[in-house]
Amino acid sequence: MSITGKQLHSTLEADGTLTLELVDKTFPSPQGNQLLVRMEAAPINPSDLFLLTNGADLENAEYSLGKMVAKLAPEMAAAQKGRFGLPQMVGNEGAGTVLETGDTDMAKALAGQRVACVPLHAFGEYAVVDANMCLPLGDYSCEQGASSFVNPMTALGFVETARMEGHDALVHVAAASNLGQMLNRICIEDGMGLVNVVRREEQAQLLRGQGATHVVNSADADFEDQLAEAIEATSAFLGFDPVGGGQSTDTCLKAMERVAARQLTAFNRYGSDKPKKMYIYGRLDFGPTILTPSYGFSWTVAGWLLTPFLQQAGLEVMARMRQRVLDGLTTTFDSSYKRKVSLEEMLQKDAITDYARRATGEKYLVTP
Amino acid sequence: MSITGKQLHSTLEADGTLTLELVDKTFPSPQGNQLLVRMEAAPINPSDLFLLTNGADLENAEYSLGKMVAKLAPEMAAAQKGRFGLPQMVGNEGAGTVLETGDTDMAKALAGQRVACVPLHAFGEYAVVDANMCLPLGDYSCEQGASSFVNPMTALGFVETARMEGHDALVHVAAASNLGQMLNRICIEDGMGLVNVVRREEQAQLLRGQGATHVVNSADADFEDQLAEAIEATSAFLGFDPVGGGQSTDTCLKAMERVAARQLTAFNRYGSDKPKKMYIYGRLDFGPTILTPSYGFSWTVAGWLLTPFLQQAGLEVMARMRQRVLDGLTTTFDSSYKRKVSLEEMLQKDAITDYARRATGEKYLVTP
Repeated sequence: MSITGKQLHSTLEADGTLTLELVDKTFPSPQGNQLLVRMEAAPINPSDLFLLTNGADLENAEYSLGKMVAKLAPEMAAAQKGRFGLPQMVGNEGAGTVLETGDTDMAKALAGQRVACVPLHAFGEYAVVDANMCLPLGDYSCEQGASSFVNPMTALGFVETARMEGHDALVHVAAASNLGQMLNRICIEDGMGLVNVVRREEQAQLLRGQGATHVVNSADADFEDQLAEAIEATSAFLGFDPVGGGQSTDTCLKAMERVAARQLTAFNRYGSDKPKKMYIYGRLDFGPTILTPSYGFSWTVAGWLLTPFLQQAGLEVMARMRQRVLDGLTTTFDSSYKRKVSLEEMLQKDAITDYARRATGEKYLVTP
Repeated sequence: MSITGKQLHSTLEADGTLTLELVDKTFPSPQGNQLLVRMEAAPINPSDLFLLTNGADLENAEYSLGKMVAKLAPEMAAAQKGRFGLPQMVGNEGAGTVLETGDTDMAKALAGQRVACVPLHAFGEYAVVDANMCLPLGDYSCEQGASSFVNPMTALGFVETARMEGHDALVHVAAASNLGQMLNRICIEDGMGLVNVVRREEQAQLLRGQGATHVVNSADADFEDQLAEAIEATSAFLGFDPVGGGQSTDTCLKAMERVAARQLTAFNRYGSDKPKKMYIYGRLDFGPTILTPSYGFSWTVAGWLLTPFLQQAGLEVMARMRQRVLDGLTTTFDSSYKRKVSLEEMLQKDAITDYARRATGEKYLVTP
């Protein structure tokens, strides 16, 4: 049996024309460890927007039923020449019902069940996925399980990374996001110190209302002092930053160095020897990262991405993380959505210009 | 017995006034494992210039015998507020003759010998140092042994770091320096791949004349292509950059990513998973480091400094490195000097404006 259904394609041409379009796609029967899943809910994550909307002139785009054609900023197009003319499927994660399985025991055991999965083509009516990468949802609904991979595993990944590198506290930038709220709950549960950096007072109140101890607001005049104080109180010399561009990472390293320098007994021309590290795990700002020479030579800035982290962490750690997500799906790892849209609706101007803003706490859920 | 001699002090005041001055200092008798050394030769390394000349208006300074008073650029002064009003001794390394020793066997065994040492106050007539940090020079002269620590151990440290992190090739920026020439000789001896990045054709010729295989000139129109080709030929995904400010590190990471992307079988929105790493080990450019979002998330930029590296590497590795330096002091680790100056001469305008330029291959040697 093969099955045909709508699938979202994103195609970028060399002239910068970006086309998002629902096309009919035929899925063959699943083989071996594969499952054919009818997708029922898929979140639009910031990580999906890279292929969907980043750099596109959405205001002046052409919209029709199931289709959008926009122009991409030239520098954004140039950076993606590897995909020129090649339709990309979109949608990292989602949840649905298993319609058909391959012939392995693992695949067959999931027949008819609701599963969360990471097909990388979740914005469509169907998906073919490997049973290894599926999480059976039991009594949870597909909407409850739709966001059970990217954000929960990333937030847990930060805590695992901190522990692997010998830290018991961390700094998180843009900390009021869905991901940030999860991280706050995890850190409270685990006794891991957390310095939440936000940019608006409402966000600070939101996190404090969820039990956060250290919340600093970059809009405050004494922000840098507050940040240094929170770092001193927690000994957080490791941080995670989804902004990337500009000086958010630089600001954290400077504050860490201020704290470390207080503990120096004599002036050191090279700065403190205290290791200070920031991971950049997103690009909310596509501008260049600016690092000033203000924190000596004992510092590291590195990219952080979920897939390589999981490969490095290994199957055992990953299984433990997934079980914890399943156990806390409606508590620690609860996701909330601003709006539910169909596949057609997600390509309409009002929706696309709204979710492309990546406003904190305003996530969309696609329900095909 | 205590002894009095001239010592160079560098004092920065809060108003940005920088004073370099020879003062009389009294050294007490060495205790325990200490040695009293009469300094006979000390190189002026880029790492010494931070306390000596960086950011100072040398052209309009006041010069008198054994003294210079200059104004420091405000941003440079502000970054060093930890030393306001506190005289700093200067001179990382040098060589001299042991005049008196403490009472340990290790100290006593060095009585009367010529030793290379790392007193951090080498620009003076005498120094008190720990015997642990001294290298007996045997038949070598003090001038031959003066530069036997900072550059040789740094160059060897790069190769050790590369091996520890599983690399068998590296990129070196500003590769025609004394340090870069040493690194080239070490890499040839060890069969370690090396991509030398220079900025002038004479520098390229100099390194090629010393047997370098891969030399790329950033002044060439097709520099980025050449760099990528050399990285592909050597598989150098680790690099060392003494420039720091601007985009030299960024350029290397971009070239590494170009090579890694060629090996991708499909477009990956996150860039390649190939780990790419650059260490910044100096600040020839005090501007901010600019990192563009051009190489995905599998990258690391970190500071590298000799002292923390040696602490991490441990005594055994350090002893092996020091023996190798001693064995190759006039070959692999040979240093050349543009000019020899006395302590008074090093504070004269013609000398100070010349060595402050940090021109490649134009190092000064102080012979008190």
